[in-house]
Amino acid sequence: MENTYLNEKDFKLLLNELNAYRETLTLAQWDMRTKIPRKAVAQRTEVVGFLADKQHQLETSEKMKFFIDVLKDKTEDPIIQKIVEECEENYERNRKIPNNEYKDYVMLQSKSEAIWQEAREKDDFSLFQPYLEELVDYNKRFADYWGYEDNVYDALLHTYEPGMTTKTLDNVFPKLRDSLSKLVDRIQRSTDKPDATILKGHFPKENQKSFTIEILRQMGYDFESGRLDDTIHPFAISLNLNDVRITTRYDEEDFRMAVFGTIHEGGHALYEQNISKKLANTPLATGTSMGIHESQSLFWENFVGRSKDFWANHFELFKSYAPKHLQTIDRNDFYRAINEVKPSLIRIEADELTYSLHIMIRYELEKALINGEIKVKDLPRLWNEKMVDYLGIEPPTDREGVLQDIHWAGGDFGYFPSYALGYMYAAQFNHFLSREMNVGELIAEGNFTKIGQWMTDNIHQYGKTKKPLEIIKNVTNEPLNQKYLIDYLTTKYTDIYNL
Amino acid sequence: MENTYLNEKDFKLLLNELNAYRETLTLAQWDMRTKIPRKAVAQRTEVVGFLADKQHQLETSEKMKFFIDVLKDKTEDPIIQKIVEECEENYERNRKIPNNEYKDYVMLQSKSEAIWQEAREKDDFSLFQPYLEELVDYNKRFADYWGYEDNVYDALLHTYEPGMTTKTLDNVFPKLRDSLSKLVDRIQRSTDKPDATILKGHFPKENQKSFTIEILRQMGYDFESGRLDDTIHPFAISLNLNDVRITTRYDEEDFRMAVFGTIHEGGHALYEQNISKKLANTPLATGTSMGIHESQSLFWENFVGRSKDFWANHFELFKSYAPKHLQTIDRNDFYRAINEVKPSLIRIEADELTYSLHIMIRYELEKALINGEIKVKDLPRLWNEKMVDYLGIEPPTDREGVLQDIHWAGGDFGYFPSYALGYMYAAQFNHFLSREMNVGELIAEGNFTKIGQWMTDNIHQYGKTKKPLEIIKNVTNEPLNQKYLIDYLTTKYTDIYNL
Repeated sequence: MENTYLNEKDFKLLLNELNAYRETLTLAQWDMRTKIPRKAVAQRTEVVGFLADKQHQLETSEKMKFFIDVLKDKTEDPIIQKIVEECEENYERNRKIPNNEYKDYVMLQSKSEAIWQEAREKDDFSLFQPYLEELVDYNKRFADYWGYEDNVYDALLHTYEPGMTTKTLDNVFPKLRDSLSKLVDRIQRSTDKPDATILKGHFPKENQKSFTIEILRQMGYDFESGRLDDTIHPFAISLNLNDVRITTRYDEEDFRMAVFGTIHEGGHALYEQNISKKLANTPLATGTSMGIHESQSLFWENFVGRSKDFWANHFELFKSYAPKHLQTIDRNDFYRAINEVKPSLIRIEADELTYSLHIMIRYELEKALINGEIKVKDLPRLWNEKMVDYLGIEPPTDREGVLQDIHWAGGDFGYFPSYALGYMYAAQFNHFLSREMNVGELIAEGNFTKIGQWMTDNIHQYGKTKKPLEIIKNVTNEPLNQKYLIDYLTTKYTDIYNL
Repeated sequence: MENTYLNEKDFKLLLNELNAYRETLTLAQWDMRTKIPRKAVAQRTEVVGFLADKQHQLETSEKMKFFIDVLKDKTEDPIIQKIVEECEENYERNRKIPNNEYKDYVMLQSKSEAIWQEAREKDDFSLFQPYLEELVDYNKRFADYWGYEDNVYDALLHTYEPGMTTKTLDNVFPKLRDSLSKLVDRIQRSTDKPDATILKGHFPKENQKSFTIEILRQMGYDFESGRLDDTIHPFAISLNLNDVRITTRYDEEDFRMAVFGTIHEGGHALYEQNISKKLANTPLATGTSMGIHESQSLFWENFVGRSKDFWANHFELFKSYAPKHLQTIDRNDFYRAINEVKPSLIRIEADELTYSLHIMIRYELEKALINGEIKVKDLPRLWNEKMVDYLGIEPPTDREGVLQDIHWAGGDFGYFPSYALGYMYAAQFNHFLSREMNVGELIAEGNFTKIGQWMTDNIHQYGKTKKPLEIIKNVTNEPLNQKYLIDYLTTKYTDIYNL
């Protein structure tokens, strides 16, 4: 007993050390994406590589193994038990990758992100191609090290969505795609379409920023535990539970980019800010999976931010920041316009109906890449073909095609499915949330407290102590079910397009 | 020979590791002073403490001792020889401080800086007092660990200005003070004083910023190797030779704060950006002392930025950014106004004549604190008394008195004299620079290239490979001499005040 207590104390010292490397590494990456001067990138990749190596060494150290062995199933503290399980999973996965290989990989990631930015600016895929080839090779090797049952891609999926398999996705995704396609078809044939051109026009960045900051505050985002910066590709990043930063991108000719983008990242940030402080500075102090994380950002962005009820309350506030051309618009026309369905080139600008079709393209391509069925050099062509097949449009440049997302540049294969899963989770949560309270009425009142509290009580507070499938099961009493998303979209867009 | 080569290679790996901690620590501190959300400060002090501890451990490691022993006086590479000497000095100084004590001290520093900010905002010295007492105690103990010949304060001075002694300062400073006093007296009696009220009035921050950015570019500051941010207390900080960041503070009612403050920090930054790339990522890749560093910032701020020649060229550019009330001012009136001599409360807002009197106060107080002749709790009273004695004015609040500077909050005792030394060095450099080129004419042409190159050739490039007294000797062929500063100020202010 005494021994376990001493071991737990020493284990916490090791966790603090791990945590210091994690926070530092995250800060170095945040700075690299938002603030770093151009010529400092090369040296920073060295530093990031060094820190990641230190973290990796600790995670796979004999010391870590010692604590796993002496504490697992022996501690009486349920949180420590969960931490040990998490550390064990990390230990097992990490020690399968040789230290040097991992270090080189992290430096490649940093370098690739910088090169991707340049390739994107210059619209030149060939700059990025050799880096992407290396990243794919690393990921295939890692998947082999980690092992899998059915499909090599499962090993990568596991990183982002523990328990999820290619088999499940290949069952769910086509159903979702069929339903979406039918709905998009009906919408295309509608004779009463919204007019989104009424939204266009110059909207000064500072005004957009002030409005989104007010919305973030209403959502419950704590600016004393976070901050908002500018970047090319918006993201949310957690240095610790009291330092959850978000970034956004402003298009002065189209406010939708920043407004809905900021609400989206704010949804991610709320998840991290509301994790139980009991888990602070442990490996459990983060969201349980990318899919569940995305359910939170998408819930706020779409189920709240693009809802009729939200604008019932917020349209006047919005107009107080908006330029002249938005002052005379009818509220219902505005609501229909911001929900216009239109096949488009850029994923993060896509409407909520076609969005998942963008995900299908990425999922199919990366699954095929990892399975060795296609080559990196063919990606631009294959990307464009699928765009034509699923969305009926062809990207005129790679910048608006295969180069648009940062994920692959960061080596994040297996991540994209999370977005579509996030949609399904969000709809499923929304359905069960609506059983407990009148969600529409609360949103219409601009009262987000009870909704936020429900998310914290059911999802946020647990951090990584509950696995994604466990959360879905506990909250909704059934497994993942695509029907809620299909029902939600059908109802919403039948109304908007008068189908 | 072969052995030395292998040892040098391994030594460089150790230096890279040290360097990674240094860059990371610097980034964490920059972020803490410019970007961090309030609630994240406590956790960050832990992280900073952890990183500083790691760095300290490496600097005092057996491994380091090994490389010092096998490489010192044995390597044929003169740069490695200098690095080893620097590492040895660090090793000897650091190993005298127990690891735990040093770690606690670094955390105290971070915490104290945050508390100082709060105390300053609330104008409440008592919040800060217990932290300052602890900081003084630590520094007295450190000075004892390090040792000294004449005065305990010498051990601290050495940190910032190697080779400088209390004895020298007690000889030079009174002479400077007497001369300054006489000159200030004559100025007070002048019947032809400049009118600085013509400068006051609203000057939008964004315009001030655009003007100062243009000046920074002209000075040769490389924005691809640095960036400019907002902060309460302006500073320059070097993450590495390609990432030298500066901060500034804008007062929309008085442009002088940002304009001269930015030129000042720009001068510091030029020093770091122009250190030879051969020294990159070694402990020699930084300025050789605080005094020499300050000579660079003060040279640019005063000898360039506040000179008649500078405004001969830049007044029209300035007016293109300036608001209406500055458009009709006569250039000579403007020049005289920005050089108004007026005893004031805030050091960083002081004119170049009274500035050194602010330094005398700080020097005398911190020397007495470290020698145990006065107590922390008496500081506000003693500060105010000296302000009355030397400058004839009394701070109405501690915020405008003893709480105004960050230095003591960071534990930087022995730092303040560098500012007065910097003035004297700058005047001495300026005198010898003027022998080689027509400095006034170049400034009047807005041509800073040759001046910058002279600074790089004679000072910047060497980083820490030459000691401060060595640089002074090499460049000016004589030791430190206060006469150049006194001559410069007398000539300049005799003209401005028609004495």
